[in-house]
Amino acid sequence: MTVHRLRLRVRYGETDQMGYAHHSVHLLWFEEGRTGLMRDLGRPYSVLERQGTLLPVVEAGLRYLAPALYEEEVEVESRVSDVTGVRVRFDYRVLRLDGTPVAEGHTVLASCGADGRPKRMPADLAAVLRSAMEGPPPVVQGRQPGEPPGGRNSP
Amino acid sequence: MTVHRLRLRVRYGETDQMGYAHHSVHLLWFEEGRTGLMRDLGRPYSVLERQGTLLPVVEAGLRYLAPALYEEEVEVESRVSDVTGVRVRFDYRVLRLDGTPVAEGHTVLASCGADGRPKRMPADLAAVLRSAMEGPPPVVQGRQPGEPPGGRNSP
Amino acid sequence: MTVHRLRLRVRYGETDQMGYAHHSVHLLWFEEGRTGLMRDLGRPYSVLERQGTLLPVVEAGLRYLAPALYEEEVEVESRVSDVTGVRVRFDYRVLRLDGTPVAEGHTVLASCGADGRPKRMPADLAAVLRSAMEGPPPVVQGRQPGEPPGGRNSP
Amino acid sequence: MTVHRLRLRVRYGETDQMGYAHHSVHLLWFEEGRTGLMRDLGRPYSVLERQGTLLPVVEAGLRYLAPALYEEEVEVESRVSDVTGVRVRFDYRVLRLDGTPVAEGHTVLASCGADGRPKRMPADLAAVLRSAMEGPPPVVQGRQPGEPPGGRNSP
Repeated sequence: MTVHRLRLRVRYGETDQMGYAHHSVHLLWFEEGRTGLMRDLGRPYSVLERQGTLLPVVEAGLRYLAPALYEEEVEVESRVSDVTGVRVRFDYRVLRLDGTPVAEGHTVLASCGADGRPKRMPADLAAVLRSAMEGPPPVVQGRQPGEPPGGRNSP
Repeated sequence: MTVHRLRLRVRYGETDQMGYAHHSVHLLWFEEGRTGLMRDLGRPYSVLERQGTLLPVVEAGLRYLAPALYEEEVEVESRVSDVTGVRVRFDYRVLRLDGTPVAEGHTVLASCGADGRPKRMPADLAAVLRSAMEGPPPVVQGRQPGEPPGGRNSP
Repeated sequence: MTVHRLRLRVRYGETDQMGYAHHSVHLLWFEEGRTGLMRDLGRPYSVLERQGTLLPVVEAGLRYLAPALYEEEVEVESRVSDVTGVRVRFDYRVLRLDGTPVAEGHTVLASCGADGRPKRMPADLAAVLRSAMEGPPPVVQGRQPGEPPGGRNSP
Repeated sequence: MTVHRLRLRVRYGETDQMGYAHHSVHLLWFEEGRTGLMRDLGRPYSVLERQGTLLPVVEAGLRYLAPALYEEEVEVESRVSDVTGVRVRFDYRVLRLDGTPVAEGHTVLASCGADGRPKRMPADLAAVLRSAMEGPPPVVQGRQPGEPPGGRNSP
């Protein structure tokens, strides 16, 4: 599975009077992570829009686990977690640099035409998103054909 | 059940290049509705904070059903849907003025002290939130003692 | 001169960790005031855009005089202060309800076509904006027909 | 003069329906640049606040020269341009990576105590800001004492 990692620093204007990054800001961070992942996959969102595919968010869920504080650096992990012909789901984690989880969540995006009406996702886009979702080959149990005795997982 | 209704107009700066109110903005609308409800209940959030009770959002969920467009007026309905000693859940609906649903969602807030650590909600706050959650008396089946024949719902 | 008055309440998410409405938010308030004024003038910005006139902001200036605090209500005064064939300037004041000035500022907007390139403002739009800028009839010197001796400005 | 350069990418949520980064966002970019400069100077804003010095923005000015578009990378240049005992002014430029100017502006910040009331800036903070403002030694005309014939700028 392809995981996109985005490092960002909490802006002063993103905090609220509680001294935390406001809970709406995480959706902007997810978005920056998600669109960074799509850029890495060769499908920048700005190009998709020019080609007539909009991907509005139709569902979002967030759990806030620890506050993100002003000037703190955090890492946003984004990955594709489901793809159908008309929707794609991304999952996210926000972590402090020491690994403390700050938030986790997901968004579901619907494929639409330039007129905002639902349309099937272009086949190549769906294929690229699916490839990003697929995991690495499973860890192999036992010796494989052509593999030297002892195997690659041996000490 | 107490339902708070907030009328607001989509700001230009709340739109994105898709021409829709950006999906993070709904959390600000929910927040304005929720804090309006608490003000109506005699527990303004600004006073709670001065008294040492913070209510950070620990969970949020949103479904986007129709775009909200610039300059359009929408109504945000907010209600309390669950209260425990340490948490309160609010449910929301955003509607166009013709009743078309724009979004629905919920947030869960955790009771914390001024130091940001969890603490039980003040008893009177919990009581007020519970009273806002309680529904009207259930619709009564059958004739009640002292009720005239034909029942109260008869023409 | 037409003055548009907009009452609004500082949102929690608009504050920063200093406990003040963040200084970028005032531009959103100015914008909501300005577009409210244009709507009152019969020229809603959403209609202008559909007719092919964009009015991007090309200059802004702000002085912050007192903090606006969470849950506080403020009033935004907006007025047209200059109109040329290609630009319009708006001046703003933000006041607490007791009259304390919170901020004052201005923005200059440039008339552009749908392609984002400068174009002269539609004549009727410029005329409407000019009419909004014109002051009330000047204070009249001397006694007017039908006015009682002593005049309305006499002590 | 110390110039802080910050590279950032326009977020989708920062655009408005005109397809440009909304004009309020530049103040957030200025802020991220300014606080980055202060961090580079060894005076992170988060530490200043904990030590009881707030620096609220009391004045801002912006000129928007070209739109910043979604997914585009821009560079924010920040520099200190004036320091008095109670105020500091920063000047900014936002540039596309090809050097096209996107915006320029300034902000003035006032030194305040934790209670939000004006107080003189800590002497070491003012000194550091002044050092950041001072230019490099002027380009020298003519041969200097002890400088070899041909001068340091000769080919």
